[in-house]
Amino acid sequence: MSAIPETILDDAVRLNETVIRPYPNSEKIYVSGSRDDLRVPMRRIRQAETRTHAGGEPNPAITVYDTSGPYTDPAVEIDLRQGLPAIRAPWIEARADTEQLAAPSSAYGRTRAGDATLAPLRFAHIRPARRARAGRNVSQMHYARRGIVTPEMEFVAIRENLRRAELRERVLTQQHAGESFGAAIPGEITPEFVRAEVARGRAIIPANINHPEVEPMIIGRNFLVKINANIGNSAVTSSIAEEVEKLVWGIRWGADTAMDLSTGKNIHETREWIIRNSPVPVGTVPIYQALEKVGGRAEELNWEIFRDTLIEQAEQGVDYFTIHAGVRLAYIPLTARRLTGIVSRGGSILAKWCLAHHKENFLYTHFEEICEIMQAYDVSFSLGDGLRPGAVADANDAAQFGELETLGELTRIAWEHEVQTMIEGPGHVPMHLIKENMDKQLRECGEAPFYTLGPLTTDIAPGYDHITSAIGAAMIGWYGTAMLCYVTPKEHLGLPDREDVRAGIITYKIAAHAADLAKGHPGAQIRDNALSKARFEFRWEDQFNLGLDPERARDFHDETLPKDGHKVAHFCSMCGPQFCSMKITQEVRDYARERGIGDDAALNEGLSEKAAEFAREGALLYKQV
Amino acid sequence: MSAIPETILDDAVRLNETVIRPYPNSEKIYVSGSRDDLRVPMRRIRQAETRTHAGGEPNPAITVYDTSGPYTDPAVEIDLRQGLPAIRAPWIEARADTEQLAAPSSAYGRTRAGDATLAPLRFAHIRPARRARAGRNVSQMHYARRGIVTPEMEFVAIRENLRRAELRERVLTQQHAGESFGAAIPGEITPEFVRAEVARGRAIIPANINHPEVEPMIIGRNFLVKINANIGNSAVTSSIAEEVEKLVWGIRWGADTAMDLSTGKNIHETREWIIRNSPVPVGTVPIYQALEKVGGRAEELNWEIFRDTLIEQAEQGVDYFTIHAGVRLAYIPLTARRLTGIVSRGGSILAKWCLAHHKENFLYTHFEEICEIMQAYDVSFSLGDGLRPGAVADANDAAQFGELETLGELTRIAWEHEVQTMIEGPGHVPMHLIKENMDKQLRECGEAPFYTLGPLTTDIAPGYDHITSAIGAAMIGWYGTAMLCYVTPKEHLGLPDREDVRAGIITYKIAAHAADLAKGHPGAQIRDNALSKARFEFRWEDQFNLGLDPERARDFHDETLPKDGHKVAHFCSMCGPQFCSMKITQEVRDYARERGIGDDAALNEGLSEKAAEFAREGALLYKQV
Repeated sequence: MSAIPETILDDAVRLNETVIRPYPNSEKIYVSGSRDDLRVPMRRIRQAETRTHAGGEPNPAITVYDTSGPYTDPAVEIDLRQGLPAIRAPWIEARADTEQLAAPSSAYGRTRAGDATLAPLRFAHIRPARRARAGRNVSQMHYARRGIVTPEMEFVAIRENLRRAELRERVLTQQHAGESFGAAIPGEITPEFVRAEVARGRAIIPANINHPEVEPMIIGRNFLVKINANIGNSAVTSSIAEEVEKLVWGIRWGADTAMDLSTGKNIHETREWIIRNSPVPVGTVPIYQALEKVGGRAEELNWEIFRDTLIEQAEQGVDYFTIHAGVRLAYIPLTARRLTGIVSRGGSILAKWCLAHHKENFLYTHFEEICEIMQAYDVSFSLGDGLRPGAVADANDAAQFGELETLGELTRIAWEHEVQTMIEGPGHVPMHLIKENMDKQLRECGEAPFYTLGPLTTDIAPGYDHITSAIGAAMIGWYGTAMLCYVTPKEHLGLPDREDVRAGIITYKIAAHAADLAKGHPGAQIRDNALSKARFEFRWEDQFNLGLDPERARDFHDETLPKDGHKVAHFCSMCGPQFCSMKITQEVRDYARERGIGDDAALNEGLSEKAAEFAREGALLYKQV
Repeated sequence: MSAIPETILDDAVRLNETVIRPYPNSEKIYVSGSRDDLRVPMRRIRQAETRTHAGGEPNPAITVYDTSGPYTDPAVEIDLRQGLPAIRAPWIEARADTEQLAAPSSAYGRTRAGDATLAPLRFAHIRPARRARAGRNVSQMHYARRGIVTPEMEFVAIRENLRRAELRERVLTQQHAGESFGAAIPGEITPEFVRAEVARGRAIIPANINHPEVEPMIIGRNFLVKINANIGNSAVTSSIAEEVEKLVWGIRWGADTAMDLSTGKNIHETREWIIRNSPVPVGTVPIYQALEKVGGRAEELNWEIFRDTLIEQAEQGVDYFTIHAGVRLAYIPLTARRLTGIVSRGGSILAKWCLAHHKENFLYTHFEEICEIMQAYDVSFSLGDGLRPGAVADANDAAQFGELETLGELTRIAWEHEVQTMIEGPGHVPMHLIKENMDKQLRECGEAPFYTLGPLTTDIAPGYDHITSAIGAAMIGWYGTAMLCYVTPKEHLGLPDREDVRAGIITYKIAAHAADLAKGHPGAQIRDNALSKARFEFRWEDQFNLGLDPERARDFHDETLPKDGHKVAHFCSMCGPQFCSMKITQEVRDYARERGIGDDAALNEGLSEKAAEFAREGALLYKQV
């Protein structure tokens, strides 16, 4: 065993404490479903009491969505060499429509499995792969269309509801109505609603039968907006151990899915480590690995190599594949006069192949065969936008929209095969052209979930593209995009490090949540209300803990007011002890209450003149205790 | 002289090199107007050549808006003790409608001037204040309404155009049409257009006659969207020297105006230092200082103290005053049941005063007297939104909109007095309620410029509120807001340090520029196009230099690929040397060009099928050189 793999294993086993430490004042809870082995993870954030003249009034614990998996459960012992528990295994077995394979079906999978020199790199406990029995389709869409509510569907229904029905406090549950642009979000997500959405293709549950470790989640415009974080090494830096830790770091901050974009010689083994330790769906772009198999020469790609790669990855448990089948030969010339041509890696690989052979994209011509592979493992399509704009100048052009039309055509074919499908979107788009993207996608692709990269709303801020893109991401999420692919501050410049990943994810959690609020997603405002109430009452700890990044909030606060005493002080550093607007406002409120100003009668009038009259004349009449 | 002032002076004189160092590959230029002393500063960013097979093709220098003042002009020697050159002094004198005062008109100003113990703290070269001659109005609005095009108006016209008429390169000047929601942005800004906009109140040029150092700028929905940065100490930390350096740091990154929100005992002297060294308009909230004059007890405020404070500050040269005259007694009870009550400092001070006295807000009752002061110095109104929402739950409620209606009423009164006026806006507003704010403001306030804080689109991300608010800021900027007040990452948590100010400003430059692009502001896309072209051509240095923060972009790039050689390398770190989408795309483009695919004929067809046919059949017919 060489020194390098030893190091990799050591690193992989010993996760840095910072990536797994529990969130402050939080506990991991599991909400049970209709069967004992259906336990849906959530995080509860405890709050302090509100101090009043009469003593303390309790504030309820707030339940938030939790993507961090078993890593933040102190009751679970993590051993990356073993991988996570296979919580879905009994559900998959109970369906009795799959078979366990004696050996990998892909040539490449067999070669790697048989290569003794790779043993030190290899995940030790590889489980034999499963595949649908001959003639069977094991996709969630297939079950949904047959009226079957799977445990996965029930799991996501419970997960999306976040126990909000249990929270009865009016102040926290009040919410603006929202504008959903024709989405159909119910007040309560039922398993049957999930089934219906998956059946009609409006949502997907990426859950490969070879990824039984996944905690099911759903992507669709009638559910909470999700975010994806990319991980993956590059030819220049990174190692297997780093990749696994990046995944755990990413889900800690809230990544709903992770795309493994690794390139390099050991990506097969890296991927195994990642999937075995991932509680979130993992996506890949198989053309990247296929390209490596032909030495980086795009023109040497062919269907056989690509097909073998799909099967290789499907049997490892990849949950969704980016497939650039819409990069048709016909559209390529339309990009030649763009400011920045083709900027998608997958798109440019296929464009090069098409031009080299003067042939139609082989992913397009073999699309139905791809569908047959996808349905045998329940891999979902993420139909790639290889012709997405790489500059605002190129937004919404003929190449981009031509490809989107083809993606609509392919969606219908995928659905005929009952393969779950989502659609990738841009890119770089100025604000006023964003909605056109969403509207066209909904129309062309029959409301299949849209999954967009940003979009970046300007090109002039390298180093800050998490922000240029968060603006576009929040807007397109509001308009109907189901999942947002994060962008880090290093976009266009280099590889994100840990802090960049954190910044990218928190930024995208903000965009996704802003979208949920604007859509009027039921219960979305609870966390905002709770945090704002804590802020107003100077419950500093609660304000930090209810935020997306408690550590950052606390650090920022402590930089100015480092003493512990200040965290319960009735002022903040912007104002100082004599001059705090919130303190004054509390006095105003007390003052108003003493005089009966602002009670229900006055407020229900709603008219300022009436209220003023009341304030002037009625103060003594309606005195409250 | 005590030790502390000595330190202050030393620090103030010696600006840290990092706040004034020139931008890379840039030169300060001055565009002359109709008179010799009208020289409008801009920054030109030089670019490298594009390397082609045939050799190099030059790329034009790109002119960008420059708020940094003389600090970034190597030809100017900076001495903070002297202050900046009084470029407007001859223009003001030539109008012959002002008089120089022998002593400050305010009681407070005279007291401070006469206090020998303050000498070490005091700016040494205080110029006697000017005031309008009796019965005269010296506001830009007054001149505009009389058909006079002032040098200030010509200055901003030249400044807004950014020499774009000289740039003839089609690739860089191409631009999307934009959606301006009824704005009326001309292709070229003329001095006459500026005059007309100021005359009808749709734009303001904040330029106190006692701030002759200011480089005039304009705030209005038919001009480039501007941003404001707040500076100012707090009761807890900060010193005079730090405040001046904060200003210089802020304008370096692009702050168009600065608000001095200082509190504490030496704010009069701090303000003098800031204004004498500020090339951008300075705004204040006079009620803060008035409150200090009554020992922090809001109920002891009165018109006389406030009036004296207005005059004190107007004679120092403050360019705009936030005046919370819309916090009417009648609206206060409407806030009592809000989640976070009144969060504006000014709003809560006045609310407390109103309730304590059971009287109408004295700023409202004395509004016409305030107008008379404003017109004597050309101080612009920034009508404060004291009842802005402090949580998304409180957005767009009766208190907020009631106040906005009153601000509309006050705008009309200010205009009768020919006082320049803008209106402040929220706050915390979920995305779907933002446009209602803008539409109502335009309607109620007769298109007076809107100046908004964010708005923050969610409350759940303390530590990242520059981002929660940039989303709202970009959107409301697109809808018609003229100036965006920045929010730093420390919002709600503490005082921003230098890096927070930089992050806040760059974030808001992004929001403002994204808005300009979406509105279709003429020439706004030039910088995006130039940067994207540089990116596509692997001109790394140009990509950095054309960005809003060249230093950050370069640092991020160098973290992954530190060698100088990489900055001209034909790959980026995301892809590695064998696998770069842009490299492949360039090959595609070359390939297409060799075969005549993508020439004008094919592109003008626009139809993908036609293009494909052309690609397959016509390749040899239309071969290009």
